[in-house]
Amino acid sequence: MNFNKISFRVRYGETDQMGVVYHGNYAQYLEIGRVEWLREMGISYKTMEKNGIMLPVISLSLHFKKSAVYDDLITVETRLVRTPLVKIEFDYKIYNEKKEILVEANTVLAFLDTTTKRPIKCPDYILEKLSY
Amino acid sequence: MNFNKISFRVRYGETDQMGVVYHGNYAQYLEIGRVEWLREMGISYKTMEKNGIMLPVISLSLHFKKSAVYDDLITVETRLVRTPLVKIEFDYKIYNEKKEILVEANTVLAFLDTTTKRPIKCPDYILEKLSY
Amino acid sequence: MNFNKISFRVRYGETDQMGVVYHGNYAQYLEIGRVEWLREMGISYKTMEKNGIMLPVISLSLHFKKSAVYDDLITVETRLVRTPLVKIEFDYKIYNEKKEILVEANTVLAFLDTTTKRPIKCPDYILEKLSY
Amino acid sequence: MNFNKISFRVRYGETDQMGVVYHGNYAQYLEIGRVEWLREMGISYKTMEKNGIMLPVISLSLHFKKSAVYDDLITVETRLVRTPLVKIEFDYKIYNEKKEILVEANTVLAFLDTTTKRPIKCPDYILEKLSY
Repeated sequence: MNFNKISFRVRYGETDQMGVVYHGNYAQYLEIGRVEWLREMGISYKTMEKNGIMLPVISLSLHFKKSAVYDDLITVETRLVRTPLVKIEFDYKIYNEKKEILVEANTVLAFLDTTTKRPIKCPDYILEKLSY
Repeated sequence: MNFNKISFRVRYGETDQMGVVYHGNYAQYLEIGRVEWLREMGISYKTMEKNGIMLPVISLSLHFKKSAVYDDLITVETRLVRTPLVKIEFDYKIYNEKKEILVEANTVLAFLDTTTKRPIKCPDYILEKLSY
Repeated sequence: MNFNKISFRVRYGETDQMGVVYHGNYAQYLEIGRVEWLREMGISYKTMEKNGIMLPVISLSLHFKKSAVYDDLITVETRLVRTPLVKIEFDYKIYNEKKEILVEANTVLAFLDTTTKRPIKCPDYILEKLSY
Repeated sequence: MNFNKISFRVRYGETDQMGVVYHGNYAQYLEIGRVEWLREMGISYKTMEKNGIMLPVISLSLHFKKSAVYDDLITVETRLVRTPLVKIEFDYKIYNEKKEILVEANTVLAFLDTTTKRPIKCPDYILEKLSY
């Protein structure tokens, strides 16, 4: 529960000359994970932003265990850490087809009013969806 | 005249597993070239956009002659092709420290009103700066 | 025939402050298209590269018709232009869920020996797969 | 001492539709910081890699305080945390022209033998350069 998985292939342009995924590209992979987590909860991040709430990342940490290589089918597992208040926190595990853990990560995002750019509380309709 | 050069180093994250700059990253290099061309003309693209004019790329062509590698100090040479009307067209040459041509490129951008998203003519203050 | 489609969603990190996909990111979309084209032909680009053949892009042209926005489910349609000799050429169309054409593009790639970095002919096993 | 600064401008393609630098792009900024730190120590990362030592990032943490926007001239301040052994750790501060802190970050990188991909100790010539 409060848990989502999504799989996709590593793109060529995401590798670097070490022959593995450039470490900075994992930020996008985590983003894909949490957007799909939201979608599975019935929440479109796109609609949320249009309705005046944005969710900038305020902290990001990544621990690299093993490299992903080009064309790997990787899976991002996204888990909500706690009931969101003014922030929402996710833990992630990224692994390859052999189920080897590649990356463990955490992000904290803040709910902001798009117009005022000020912090707001997690919208009720998200909290309601979380309670099921 | 109507000509600008800017040099910078290739970043590690811009390479791919071929050990050279990923071809898609040259779009950013061209963008740096034309922004500096504008800056040298006394035009800030940032200010232009704030003042309601945006310049989306409507066509882009790139011919790759030789690879750039990590940490290369490359130079983007940007040249205005003709007096802009509703579009502005640039030719580019990118070369390395040995003056070897790496890439030849061309972009066409359109002047758009940021609010209406409709085409507009090149602002007079740009045309005036070009006439010197 | 000699034709492939693949669909995926626009990532947040692929947009720019115009609120649309940054034009340079389409290079990656085309790459996804042709890799899937190869895969459908029974050819793994990854394996090809491991076996000593690489396929750098030598020219790239893009015509932008309409913008893609965040979270759009876009489709890349990849078509082989002609029987490959020492080069392989693809045409692409990218469209959104409403079937609006966003981008038309073309790439030419060269078959190179990974070790010598010299041009070689398209491997027979690819030509054979194309003849069916 | 053991401290370096480098400044550069935010590229358009590095922004996202929030109108600020996409958070994932800061990984590249940190990379620029530590590469210049090495260069100032008289160490070329490029040469180091050619000589058989690579430095993959094994952990990365970023705390976002304030946004950088397009065309900002930002400064990355890189500081060595301690004498490197088998790992090398850096702290970073990124700020804008108004000296506002945008990001605080930390990376740990591991010295690896490029051929064996096994951990090795920090090369003596780096330790020697550090001791001055």
